[in-house]
Amino acid sequence: MVKLKIGMCQMMTVKTSKMDNIKKAKEIMEKAILQGAEIVVLPEMFNCPYNIKHFREYSEQFPNGDTIRMLSNVARDNSVYVVGGSIPELDKDRVYNTCFVFDDKGNMIGKHRKAHLFDVDIKGKVKFKESQVLSHGDKATIIDTKWGKIGVEICYDIRFPELMRTMAMNGAKIVFVPASFNMTTGPAHWEILFKSRALDNQIYIVGVSPARNTSYSYVSYGNSLIVNPWGEITHRLDEKENVLVGEIDLDYIDEVRKSLPLLKHLRPEVYNNVE
Amino acid sequence: MVKLKIGMCQMMTVKTSKMDNIKKAKEIMEKAILQGAEIVVLPEMFNCPYNIKHFREYSEQFPNGDTIRMLSNVARDNSVYVVGGSIPELDKDRVYNTCFVFDDKGNMIGKHRKAHLFDVDIKGKVKFKESQVLSHGDKATIIDTKWGKIGVEICYDIRFPELMRTMAMNGAKIVFVPASFNMTTGPAHWEILFKSRALDNQIYIVGVSPARNTSYSYVSYGNSLIVNPWGEITHRLDEKENVLVGEIDLDYIDEVRKSLPLLKHLRPEVYNNVE
Repeated sequence: MVKLKIGMCQMMTVKTSKMDNIKKAKEIMEKAILQGAEIVVLPEMFNCPYNIKHFREYSEQFPNGDTIRMLSNVARDNSVYVVGGSIPELDKDRVYNTCFVFDDKGNMIGKHRKAHLFDVDIKGKVKFKESQVLSHGDKATIIDTKWGKIGVEICYDIRFPELMRTMAMNGAKIVFVPASFNMTTGPAHWEILFKSRALDNQIYIVGVSPARNTSYSYVSYGNSLIVNPWGEITHRLDEKENVLVGEIDLDYIDEVRKSLPLLKHLRPEVYNNVE
Repeated sequence: MVKLKIGMCQMMTVKTSKMDNIKKAKEIMEKAILQGAEIVVLPEMFNCPYNIKHFREYSEQFPNGDTIRMLSNVARDNSVYVVGGSIPELDKDRVYNTCFVFDDKGNMIGKHRKAHLFDVDIKGKVKFKESQVLSHGDKATIIDTKWGKIGVEICYDIRFPELMRTMAMNGAKIVFVPASFNMTTGPAHWEILFKSRALDNQIYIVGVSPARNTSYSYVSYGNSLIVNPWGEITHRLDEKENVLVGEIDLDYIDEVRKSLPLLKHLRPEVYNNVE
């Protein structure tokens, strides 16, 4: 059996101080590590208010920046993997919504740039246009770890089943999704999306949200969760700031795929053959 | 507004008499029509026990066969569309699991042959191997109706998001899914699959199951349902034999797609670009 412990760090970001956010992220990761987490996961945009006008100001250019250094140090000092939620990343004057991933020596072993930008306008409820300031990534991100391959998506990426399928077909066994759904899309869709992606691809999916702060302009849903390859939620937080360490068993993937061989039953020749 | 009424006919099939099943299908469709249904939908394998050893014996070759004639007659006599669940279809010595669709003049306007055969072995719970006797279809089925394009899948087809995506991208606004999930996969996955496919593609999906008969070797889950493009179940039966007529509003598809433009935000260039 290949078991590992995943620490979901559902932190409450503070309004404006980047250094306070970095400090809080470090503390909450250390809490998860104390509880045995071997991979710790932060939420989307954890060092920054989730508001497009702040992204450039809070951005960092790898390998510089206080947030990036802190993530690497936490990984190295505690010998854990870190899936660094996401932060605004600066690269040649462009800003991305990026997740940096570090191994247990503190090396940056991969990064995912959000590939689908959140440009929506749900009348009277949510209006957001990331593309005004952000550029999108152009790759599916798969990273080798000592447990096998993992994938990373960021928030809105999960709405597009094609991306998750690509990762599963390329061997990802766990996909980490730092995300910040809101109080409209969260109750309506958060659970369905995570459960169906895990079920369709027979992999583990880990969604980590910020804690809910109702005084923000953008209120996060919370409800960080782990879903197993049978589509069941095995671990779930509520809306409050908290840490949850969940153990998963990677061998269960093979068991599910043996009983219900979905990936073997795919029929690509049918999908472009429209009658 | 383009509204239409869909009649879900969750019939209890009888054990062995094909003629009894045909009679019951006709009666239950007439019940739905009396309640105003403009399209009536039957469940998977409604003229036959859901057992591979019976499929060839109960099969019909279009345009012959008592079942096919009854479906056409009900459509013509009542001026309604009929999505004929599925029956075993014989064609050149091969047997398919096929849904025939009729317009309100009784013309057969399209058919879907189940493209993914149900070959599963969930230890101690469900064992089934359709491919021992059935051949699979090789097309995505889209059919023109007076309300626009509709798609058809059969049961296990819904586990493969690629097929639903193909239909949505080719203009299907409603996808009908005659299906017979069982008492293991039904409670675990029925709802997740229907909700997520409707949500991801922002279309209506109609799932129609046989009623639950616990004296069968294969016990159907029931729970026929309509899901709207926001991923909400708007109409749902329980496990018993019953008819439910649900009205849907096709304009709601545009409204949802305008607020959350998922199909416009697809990034096909990303999905084959693995880092």
